[in-house]
Amino acid sequence: MPQQGKVKVGIIGSQFEADIHAASFQIMPEEAEVVAVASPTPGHPEALAQKYGIPRVFHDYRKLLDEDDIEMVTIAAPNYLHARLTVEVANAGKHVVCEKPLCMTLEEADEMIDVCRRQGVLLLYAEELFFTPKYVQAKKMADEGAFGKVYLVKQSEKHFGPHAPWFWDVERSGGGVFMDMGCHGIAFCYWFLDRPAVQSVQCQMGTYVHGQKTRGEDNSICILEFAGGAVGLVENSWARRGGMDDRIEVYGEGGVTYANLHMGNALPTYSQYGFGYAVEKAPETKGWTYPVFEELWNYGFPQEMRHFARCVRGKEQPLATGEDGRVVQEVLYAGYESARTGRKVELPFRPSGVKRPIDLWLAPERSESARI
Amino acid sequence: MPQQGKVKVGIIGSQFEADIHAASFQIMPEEAEVVAVASPTPGHPEALAQKYGIPRVFHDYRKLLDEDDIEMVTIAAPNYLHARLTVEVANAGKHVVCEKPLCMTLEEADEMIDVCRRQGVLLLYAEELFFTPKYVQAKKMADEGAFGKVYLVKQSEKHFGPHAPWFWDVERSGGGVFMDMGCHGIAFCYWFLDRPAVQSVQCQMGTYVHGQKTRGEDNSICILEFAGGAVGLVENSWARRGGMDDRIEVYGEGGVTYANLHMGNALPTYSQYGFGYAVEKAPETKGWTYPVFEELWNYGFPQEMRHFARCVRGKEQPLATGEDGRVVQEVLYAGYESARTGRKVELPFRPSGVKRPIDLWLAPERSESARI
Amino acid sequence: MPQQGKVKVGIIGSQFEADIHAASFQIMPEEAEVVAVASPTPGHPEALAQKYGIPRVFHDYRKLLDEDDIEMVTIAAPNYLHARLTVEVANAGKHVVCEKPLCMTLEEADEMIDVCRRQGVLLLYAEELFFTPKYVQAKKMADEGAFGKVYLVKQSEKHFGPHAPWFWDVERSGGGVFMDMGCHGIAFCYWFLDRPAVQSVQCQMGTYVHGQKTRGEDNSICILEFAGGAVGLVENSWARRGGMDDRIEVYGEGGVTYANLHMGNALPTYSQYGFGYAVEKAPETKGWTYPVFEELWNYGFPQEMRHFARCVRGKEQPLATGEDGRVVQEVLYAGYESARTGRKVELPFRPSGVKRPIDLWLAPERSESARI
Amino acid sequence: MPQQGKVKVGIIGSQFEADIHAASFQIMPEEAEVVAVASPTPGHPEALAQKYGIPRVFHDYRKLLDEDDIEMVTIAAPNYLHARLTVEVANAGKHVVCEKPLCMTLEEADEMIDVCRRQGVLLLYAEELFFTPKYVQAKKMADEGAFGKVYLVKQSEKHFGPHAPWFWDVERSGGGVFMDMGCHGIAFCYWFLDRPAVQSVQCQMGTYVHGQKTRGEDNSICILEFAGGAVGLVENSWARRGGMDDRIEVYGEGGVTYANLHMGNALPTYSQYGFGYAVEKAPETKGWTYPVFEELWNYGFPQEMRHFARCVRGKEQPLATGEDGRVVQEVLYAGYESARTGRKVELPFRPSGVKRPIDLWLAPERSESARI
Repeated sequence: MPQQGKVKVGIIGSQFEADIHAASFQIMPEEAEVVAVASPTPGHPEALAQKYGIPRVFHDYRKLLDEDDIEMVTIAAPNYLHARLTVEVANAGKHVVCEKPLCMTLEEADEMIDVCRRQGVLLLYAEELFFTPKYVQAKKMADEGAFGKVYLVKQSEKHFGPHAPWFWDVERSGGGVFMDMGCHGIAFCYWFLDRPAVQSVQCQMGTYVHGQKTRGEDNSICILEFAGGAVGLVENSWARRGGMDDRIEVYGEGGVTYANLHMGNALPTYSQYGFGYAVEKAPETKGWTYPVFEELWNYGFPQEMRHFARCVRGKEQPLATGEDGRVVQEVLYAGYESARTGRKVELPFRPSGVKRPIDLWLAPERSESARI
Repeated sequence: MPQQGKVKVGIIGSQFEADIHAASFQIMPEEAEVVAVASPTPGHPEALAQKYGIPRVFHDYRKLLDEDDIEMVTIAAPNYLHARLTVEVANAGKHVVCEKPLCMTLEEADEMIDVCRRQGVLLLYAEELFFTPKYVQAKKMADEGAFGKVYLVKQSEKHFGPHAPWFWDVERSGGGVFMDMGCHGIAFCYWFLDRPAVQSVQCQMGTYVHGQKTRGEDNSICILEFAGGAVGLVENSWARRGGMDDRIEVYGEGGVTYANLHMGNALPTYSQYGFGYAVEKAPETKGWTYPVFEELWNYGFPQEMRHFARCVRGKEQPLATGEDGRVVQEVLYAGYESARTGRKVELPFRPSGVKRPIDLWLAPERSESARI
Repeated sequence: MPQQGKVKVGIIGSQFEADIHAASFQIMPEEAEVVAVASPTPGHPEALAQKYGIPRVFHDYRKLLDEDDIEMVTIAAPNYLHARLTVEVANAGKHVVCEKPLCMTLEEADEMIDVCRRQGVLLLYAEELFFTPKYVQAKKMADEGAFGKVYLVKQSEKHFGPHAPWFWDVERSGGGVFMDMGCHGIAFCYWFLDRPAVQSVQCQMGTYVHGQKTRGEDNSICILEFAGGAVGLVENSWARRGGMDDRIEVYGEGGVTYANLHMGNALPTYSQYGFGYAVEKAPETKGWTYPVFEELWNYGFPQEMRHFARCVRGKEQPLATGEDGRVVQEVLYAGYESARTGRKVELPFRPSGVKRPIDLWLAPERSESARI
Repeated sequence: MPQQGKVKVGIIGSQFEADIHAASFQIMPEEAEVVAVASPTPGHPEALAQKYGIPRVFHDYRKLLDEDDIEMVTIAAPNYLHARLTVEVANAGKHVVCEKPLCMTLEEADEMIDVCRRQGVLLLYAEELFFTPKYVQAKKMADEGAFGKVYLVKQSEKHFGPHAPWFWDVERSGGGVFMDMGCHGIAFCYWFLDRPAVQSVQCQMGTYVHGQKTRGEDNSICILEFAGGAVGLVENSWARRGGMDDRIEVYGEGGVTYANLHMGNALPTYSQYGFGYAVEKAPETKGWTYPVFEELWNYGFPQEMRHFARCVRGKEQPLATGEDGRVVQEVLYAGYESARTGRKVELPFRPSGVKRPIDLWLAPERSESARI
């Protein structure tokens, strides 16, 4: 494989996340270029290829893996496919960028990490919050001592539910909003505090609004206690009206900061007639809205993909890895367990026989025995 | 006692809370007038009397209780005195306004309620959040159906710690920030949701910043589950720099609202030279600050005191009673218990032998046995 | 007339402004009570009387003036009636509260001031911005030196146009938005700076949106230069969508403050279903809105009416007088003149023969000659 | 010269603006690379070269112009040098990026445009507001019809004054804050409205705070009337405490939008200890501050420089040209004239004999004669 020039990238998937990947590489084109896309649904990968000028299209991702010049593959597929695809990509000798959450089970996580290590490829975990410029600024201030010792970090992501049907099907997603977006908040707190061990997890959740549509939880509150004495508070919802909401709060003995990616970055706007687009998940552009600008950049996606390409070239050390994703996975387990039992779950927590994290909340009988 | 004209009020206490009471009656003078103040420290009640033109001053509150024309007495004394004073005021045949939290123990709460009932006097619980205009507006919108079914209510109150020394001494306060300000949030969620039974309490707390100064917790996070399926999230801190912070969030399947009493009501201001006063607990008026206006009004204190006076005259039914305070007290117990055990505590929860709520967190041995 | 007890008030008018007056006295009932309302349209005064419990209703305001016990009369009638009504009220020996703007012409202003002085009654000018708590706080900070020497004060009031038809008819209103709301901003800057002489006025205006409906201007920008070297910038619009907007900015060499009465005091709210009422002039309660709370209090109307009643009782000195209204009137003249000529108009400016201030903008021929 | 690969760039200057140029090319490195810097002060260009890895350093910019491979030169020198340098760069056959404002006089503007046209090089006008992502989003919404017909556009830029001494010296700057930052607002309104002719200019200005330091104005208010019936309001100050402030407002008959580049993008932060950097021109990082993130990106500098490089390669058509700068220059003339005379100045306005725009305000005798 080439060791210089732009990193050649293949994307597995063609929908929402795949579009973000392709757009991100286009926004920061210096380090990488997307040369192939694979997706089984006829027309879908063609559409993405057309939109972003991607030269090669496959309906079978294995064909994409056969392309010798592709060095890095991004996985933009439903959660239950992450592990299998990662293993195949790694076995094809290509670096892996895997979307969040890393996978369904801790066994999968271990295998993904292990295979990538053995194959000598990078397992890059696509947690864009590590690259969100506003949040990076908050961490920079914290690292400069602005807040003294930080004792509480909060992250919250809320909207009215995802578009793609597989998110609502816990067989394919592994869980509801805690799995889908809680993984962001868990990773964020862990990263912000410089990766101290998670010592315990307390979680409350329920299906408050979308019970007709899913067995998954649509609202969750999760409290993490970290080694060294800080606390994380992670809140998520698929039941919050009014468009996307993503925010953090940081409390230290010497100060506090707030960062709001949406309202706090937006142009407060009133329109009688509406306009093209306001913000992700917003239903309407008439009346008052909070349109954002350079949305992907403000999330940090292009910066993230650029970083991953530079890691492939050895110019940077990975800031978001399979190990990070594995930590998140363990907390997801513990969170679902805590939500069922009402108990604070101490880590390490590794129940056996888990198929989907949400089962620890939904199916008492299984996980009761599993805990023994 | 007179049954018409302005209600004659006596205040027991002369410091921060007593000052708020006196100022509140002054701001809305239509229904009541403060005619007496009692406080043991020489000079203190005199100063308050001077400031607000209160004609009678006592160093022994029992003398105040001897005054026949006084119909309503407000108790602005440390928590551990609330129960004893309430009983004495009631036995003197006067209506009681008791500051939050209601008392130290559930036994005290029961006695306070019982005595007042037997004496035929009102036990009015001074939870000003029921009268805070911005929060009342949020509730009004919710009651009008703006948010559909509400599934999550949040309330948070944070600053860098109280001024009066007794707050830091758990013997006199009964607990730290969860006791001091958590009682507001618990009451708020309960009231906002129209008083459904609290079914369970999960709580996390710690002493993160002020360990040299107190055994009480200085940060707490509390999750309440209510009958009917809504959740309350109550966050409090004595370790938040930058002045007072009091805010709510309301989530329903049909909408959301945010209300921030301080930054969200303030005049963003930069001053090179400083000025008189910005906001409660703010350390500084130079640089950027968020000064508020008509602070007491925006908290709802004058409206609350006016309401209490009108209750005495039979013009309104009490909106905040000893029973409300008792519910809060039970949740405080459950919160401290949950913080120690890491378990979700189901209500009703009535351990015996509790002296101070915080002991359920601090002293495992005692409460372990108590739980049996 | 009685010299103690509550001031007895009569209201002339029964629509929007009259409702504000009645509600304001109800909110702060300590000093005054509304005992009568007069309005010629059958049913209108009855409705107001019903709503606020006003005992006496008249269709002829002269009957109201015959009531001996009424001490103060508020005029909530179209602008062109202000002068005539003021003179009659004063001649009836009653104190006058006149809505803004004071009148149509400087001759009228002089007569109003003169008659009230001769009759020994107060001419109280209902400029509520002098009592708006948030703006009062800004002035308090300025007076405490927070901003050092203030060199620029801005005030802006904007919405999508008034409801009552007479505002759009320049014969009855005397002008468009500059007359209707510019009078607030002019008064505000003058008051904030402690009433230095206005030295010059520059103004730009146009009818940008509502040309089908009115000859009046629907957007105006006005720059005032004051003795002592400060500048006022007053912006107004009847063409601003999205509900009421009222804000100030204060710039001094030592600091700056911003105050926003609406968005800056509101509860950011999203509602799928809508609710009762968000804020004055807002068209809709679905989607994102900025509902306010205690709207009249936050404007300062009850505080203003209470102050006026206390002035009648001699407890306070008038803070807003006919003289203030006259200054505003002269600036209105100068602003319209400047908008037509494109020239900075120096004060004093007293053209003769003006019937309506807007004629100085609309009718060059008339005012050209008048200027000679 | 090469017609492919990255555009090779030279920078004339080594201070604040030169640093922004170098950093901008580094942030978006795809299209261009800085290969040389020239500045006469020993040590200065070396420091910039060191910081950004620029290989060639010159103390005489003519040496830089001798470098054959350099295709584009950015001019980051005081205003009075813009014209001379532009002519020399163009005569060396290199494309010109000239900082704002374009120059001192209309004669210079004409010469710059003429020479560049004759030499076949681009004259690119570095107005970054045309590339500011948040403002671009506002324009995009306007172009999509969100606001219907736009009748008022406001832009304001304020801080407490520039660092470099030459700004305060009107001989070298040509004027105060109206020249320095008013040029942004004038260009912004013109661009936002799709470049309608400016028909008239009204302006008010003064030296309110920094009279000891400069003859230049430190606060200005400017009203522009455009062909087609829209108005621009441009406000600028070197006397605004509290850090940089840059904002716009857009009013149409169908809606309104607000965009604030600083507070409206920032992380509201309280720090007891301070931290590295909050925002341009902010004096302090202790207490409450509004730190921003990715500051240059949020201003649009990298996007602007990337666009200029793409123009050189013929991939895009210039969006900001010498002609734009010339329009601004004429309005600057008219604004200073209006500020002196108090009259609305109609365009075209081309007084002869002007050396520095500010003279039209400062030196009545000269410009009086010039107007004849």
